[in-house]
Amino acid sequence: MNELVFQQYLKQNFPFSRGHGIGDDASVVCSENTHQLITTDLLIENIHFRLQDIDMKSLALKALAVNLSDIAAMGGIPQYFYLGLGYSRAPVWDEMKKFFQGLKSGCRKWNLELAGGDFSHSSQLFISITMVGKAEQPVYRHNARTGDLIAIIGHIGASALGLELLSNGIQIEPWTTRHQKVIPHLQEGQILSKYVNSMIDVSDGLVIDLKRILIASGKGGRLYYEKLPIHRSMKKVCHEYHFDEQDLVLSGGEDFALVFTISPEREIELRQENIRYQIIGEVVSKKNQLTITHNGKPLRIKKSGYDHFKR
Amino acid sequence: MNELVFQQYLKQNFPFSRGHGIGDDASVVCSENTHQLITTDLLIENIHFRLQDIDMKSLALKALAVNLSDIAAMGGIPQYFYLGLGYSRAPVWDEMKKFFQGLKSGCRKWNLELAGGDFSHSSQLFISITMVGKAEQPVYRHNARTGDLIAIIGHIGASALGLELLSNGIQIEPWTTRHQKVIPHLQEGQILSKYVNSMIDVSDGLVIDLKRILIASGKGGRLYYEKLPIHRSMKKVCHEYHFDEQDLVLSGGEDFALVFTISPEREIELRQENIRYQIIGEVVSKKNQLTITHNGKPLRIKKSGYDHFKR
Repeated sequence: MNELVFQQYLKQNFPFSRGHGIGDDASVVCSENTHQLITTDLLIENIHFRLQDIDMKSLALKALAVNLSDIAAMGGIPQYFYLGLGYSRAPVWDEMKKFFQGLKSGCRKWNLELAGGDFSHSSQLFISITMVGKAEQPVYRHNARTGDLIAIIGHIGASALGLELLSNGIQIEPWTTRHQKVIPHLQEGQILSKYVNSMIDVSDGLVIDLKRILIASGKGGRLYYEKLPIHRSMKKVCHEYHFDEQDLVLSGGEDFALVFTISPEREIELRQENIRYQIIGEVVSKKNQLTITHNGKPLRIKKSGYDHFKR
Repeated sequence: MNELVFQQYLKQNFPFSRGHGIGDDASVVCSENTHQLITTDLLIENIHFRLQDIDMKSLALKALAVNLSDIAAMGGIPQYFYLGLGYSRAPVWDEMKKFFQGLKSGCRKWNLELAGGDFSHSSQLFISITMVGKAEQPVYRHNARTGDLIAIIGHIGASALGLELLSNGIQIEPWTTRHQKVIPHLQEGQILSKYVNSMIDVSDGLVIDLKRILIASGKGGRLYYEKLPIHRSMKKVCHEYHFDEQDLVLSGGEDFALVFTISPEREIELRQENIRYQIIGEVVSKKNQLTITHNGKPLRIKKSGYDHFKR
């Protein structure tokens, strides 16, 4: 059992007749004059975060942001959300209040509203958010075309480096903050939706998430390591602490960069827009194959990213 | 901190401009020609269920049904849902398959579709479902009026008796099944929506849930114990095992009966419909007070129902 087989099982057994269901960053249901987007994401203590690494306010903001990133990857505008909260101790109001202050500040920041929820005791803290949004032209994973350029908005590897440092008891900026604070690329996603053929947000790792686009589209791809937007001091920190930079960049999760594919013609038009992106590869016809090179030499990677079907 | 204070805090700090947010069984967002209902409910291992008491297929059905009961209590029709699943072991496909077979059978039974989800490891199994539905005339908690009759559809106390027996290692039908299998009163809810002033489903206990209607409506109430729909052999089992019948009936959760208030005039019209309900009390004007009597004698109850703010 791996994710792909599981997703195929779900798609076969749970057909969705109202629009686009399983298999993208959010579901899409078409109504008269818009497309409703809904996405749901879990954040679980000791799986997605450790309480010693993040305060309750930042945790609430992160829980919102990972969902917002899904809406961004569909080219959508977020509107309101539902909160499922399992709290691991008898609720201490001061702690809870910090969490809800975080939610409130997220609501102001991203123009969101809390519409409902459910609360319960639990042996570990977890947050389950379901986010509702809308899009004029939703962008899917399955429309990448041969000849498309592969491009990215946002740095990668930074969150994974922050996590690696925190796991070793080290706090160095900007890496700690990069792991704790997710920046959803909402405005960029909305602009891109007018130009691109496919899009995804990097939640589990660049390679695994790019592969999701390629597999959904029945395409192959070429990725150029030397073109990747890696923060310039990352190499130095990796060298100093003996971390594997390549592994963090290609397989590290939670950067929430937007990866998209776009035709070369539309990419020329996109240059008129006030957004910064980097071209990192291209879509080729060969099915389900992704080759990665570094200055012309082929790279072999150890793992593609976080696999929810293995421990 | 109790639930009421918490809810007031949430309502003050998270106003909802798109319809009706926190404070009912589901949120209501109005669009051109319908009302969209969305509700979310958690089911957590060792809080809401124990794996030794329920198989994975029944668990999936129960997770759907508790959400469907919320849609029923709003007078709505369920449509599709999102699944957040935290699994406590490396996923064993046979176990997972049973769970998804349960979901599939629930989809057939209640005409539902799975629209999306998120899956992750977790130290305990939990299920977070967000259900989307629609209603022509949503029924809220806050419209109970002085002089309304209080009525109920479904038996009460049966699920709590089943749980009490299972906790003591005893399986006796129909009680075990009553605890494991939730029957959402969807059709009844839709019919009632044309007649009633307020409605709720009994998830945490009859008294606590009826109080939610009365508090939201700023009313008081009278409840007649002798009129409650208690399964006839329940008294016998309670006597035999020394369980407190009154406590199970008034404070036991998870019966998912529908409690509603209706004007006496509309109740006469409701008799034309092919549904069975029982009148158990009336709404009075005195604010926030509920009196309970048994054959004229006042009853004092130990607790109102399951309080998520206490262990």
